[in-house]
Amino acid sequence: MVTDRINDFLRTTRSDEPFVVVDLEVVRKNFERLARALPESRVYYAVKANPAPEILALLAKLGSSFDTASVAEIEMVLAAGASADRISYGNTIKKERDIARAYALGVRLYAVDCPEEVEKIARVAPGARVFCRVLTDGAGAEWPLSRKFGCEPDMAVSVLEHAHKLGLEAVGVSFHVGSQQANTAAWDTALADASRVFKTLAERGIHLKLVNMGGGFPTRYLKDVPTSEDYGKAIFGALRRHFGNRIPETIIEPGRGLVGDAGVIRAEVVLVSRKSEDPDGQRWVFLDIGKFGGLAETMDEAIRYPIRTPRDGDRTTPCVIAGPTCDSADVLYEKTPYELPVSLTVGDEILIEATGAYTTTYASNGFNGFAPLKSYVI
Amino acid sequence: MVTDRINDFLRTTRSDEPFVVVDLEVVRKNFERLARALPESRVYYAVKANPAPEILALLAKLGSSFDTASVAEIEMVLAAGASADRISYGNTIKKERDIARAYALGVRLYAVDCPEEVEKIARVAPGARVFCRVLTDGAGAEWPLSRKFGCEPDMAVSVLEHAHKLGLEAVGVSFHVGSQQANTAAWDTALADASRVFKTLAERGIHLKLVNMGGGFPTRYLKDVPTSEDYGKAIFGALRRHFGNRIPETIIEPGRGLVGDAGVIRAEVVLVSRKSEDPDGQRWVFLDIGKFGGLAETMDEAIRYPIRTPRDGDRTTPCVIAGPTCDSADVLYEKTPYELPVSLTVGDEILIEATGAYTTTYASNGFNGFAPLKSYVI
Repeated sequence: MVTDRINDFLRTTRSDEPFVVVDLEVVRKNFERLARALPESRVYYAVKANPAPEILALLAKLGSSFDTASVAEIEMVLAAGASADRISYGNTIKKERDIARAYALGVRLYAVDCPEEVEKIARVAPGARVFCRVLTDGAGAEWPLSRKFGCEPDMAVSVLEHAHKLGLEAVGVSFHVGSQQANTAAWDTALADASRVFKTLAERGIHLKLVNMGGGFPTRYLKDVPTSEDYGKAIFGALRRHFGNRIPETIIEPGRGLVGDAGVIRAEVVLVSRKSEDPDGQRWVFLDIGKFGGLAETMDEAIRYPIRTPRDGDRTTPCVIAGPTCDSADVLYEKTPYELPVSLTVGDEILIEATGAYTTTYASNGFNGFAPLKSYVI
Repeated sequence: MVTDRINDFLRTTRSDEPFVVVDLEVVRKNFERLARALPESRVYYAVKANPAPEILALLAKLGSSFDTASVAEIEMVLAAGASADRISYGNTIKKERDIARAYALGVRLYAVDCPEEVEKIARVAPGARVFCRVLTDGAGAEWPLSRKFGCEPDMAVSVLEHAHKLGLEAVGVSFHVGSQQANTAAWDTALADASRVFKTLAERGIHLKLVNMGGGFPTRYLKDVPTSEDYGKAIFGALRRHFGNRIPETIIEPGRGLVGDAGVIRAEVVLVSRKSEDPDGQRWVFLDIGKFGGLAETMDEAIRYPIRTPRDGDRTTPCVIAGPTCDSADVLYEKTPYELPVSLTVGDEILIEATGAYTTTYASNGFNGFAPLKSYVI
């Protein structure tokens, strides 16, 4: 979304290289809208989506909690002014020494999905609270999840029981329905699984109280997505259905949903060419940003960003869009070509919208000598 | 290849994080072997494979020239002690201001694949030498090329003629048979195309003299690959076949072929777990390095690295191997699981061989808070 504030910034900013600019006012509105739509849920911002200090500081001020993937992210959140009791170490894959460091920093909430991880936590983070991630199928997500995180719900019962026996506080269950999940019903199946884990453990005297419903809240790219209110309604309905009037504490972990549409990348057309002399041959449009410079989520053409050009309104034809590196995998859209104005020309500045999430950190560390994506937060 | 020098280094180096170590003696031997196998070809090292200053300095001393993708890479090569006449600006996608900067730094050799790029060069790099890249099909390569670079051979004729008319020196043709190309015959088709471009232009009074045969020279991962000598023989045979006794000057651009097997990554097993309580269920082995930390070439399970563990010799079973980030795409080998010892345990240090190329620069800029891959060159 190119807000007035972003427009002002773009007008007065010259740059030889592509950059992303994130409008904090949009982040604020996204946070407030989601918090309002799910008033009983606590928001844990998924720091990995965009760890810019200004974003963390704003969310800390707004009362957000934080989902972190590493000790470095924990330190960033603390530096932004949030206290350790607002931090979840949500990565199920942690070195024991990193758990110890997190514990020393005051973090008390940890994700697990197997007995081995429970044992590490019991050794170096005595008494900590753990939740167990269960597998979901991720159907309907644009950036679907593999089976990497989580275990079968039956196994979650043993994992949490094991935690309980080792003196940890077994607090609940987590799941993730897949990033950019446009199907609001996806939460229903996962909550059904979660409630079964609750019941089985209750029969064994272990009373869970927390469901971490993960992320998956989408940002608007080219297609319309349901509103926060739609998600709120669907999720609350599913909670009622599966937990009756004993609805547990809930956590949500939006990342993309808070920052995605707050960012805009400005890039430049480096070359427009064809592969043969056929004047009707497909045009290739090369930008100064690509898969290795911040647009990694175009992998398999998963995320399709809205692109604005100074020639919008002119006649368009389908183009292949590619990045600037000497890597042949650095092609953004080819299987489904992208409509761009025929008048588009070398040197034109374009805007790539909805690029506030997963762009700065997915950028490579100088591949082909190109610097990582520059970032401004306003 | 874990050389004695690398072994000594590993023995004396403690690190909390994964790192790559590159043995310059292996780079030196690779360079000498390839130079000997193709004595008439000039070697332009593809800097993007690994731009470590020590590697560039060694190759500069050995007499190598350099294929660069950006002005930043040109500056690195100059800083390593090579003069500008040993540098090719081999990226077909260049901003006009970057061409001007390269020209100001003394670079005179440029890649093109369309008239638009020729015009930029004619404007800001008068009199420069240009070669035109032609499309090849890349069959047989493990990291195959898309149609991103190059044009149809017929179009190359017009592109070079256009360059000639604009006062540039049309010097020749380039192609790339695909990275990690194990089929030595792949060069034959491409050289046939190149020779046709030579003949057609000669009839129009433009006498080309250079064939840039690109990269594609493989490094040994798990499967055996042909030797440098095999490549030399096949390529020389193809040159004879298509150019008779008027063999042109030739350039080769090895990247992986010079540095791939010179590097070893040391990493750590963070977690070994299963997804269900079935004791025969698949094991998942999580490392502290993955797709975003340097092993991006495992994308689509393209490159299969040899892995050594301290338990080698024990009974093995097939495992899924994944990285440490909270990204579900960060899975290295799953479609074709990897045999690892059943005794493999959290905390074990493993070695990932043949990781000297495309690891440090493909690493993300701090995704999930994990620092980019540390690199040592010895």
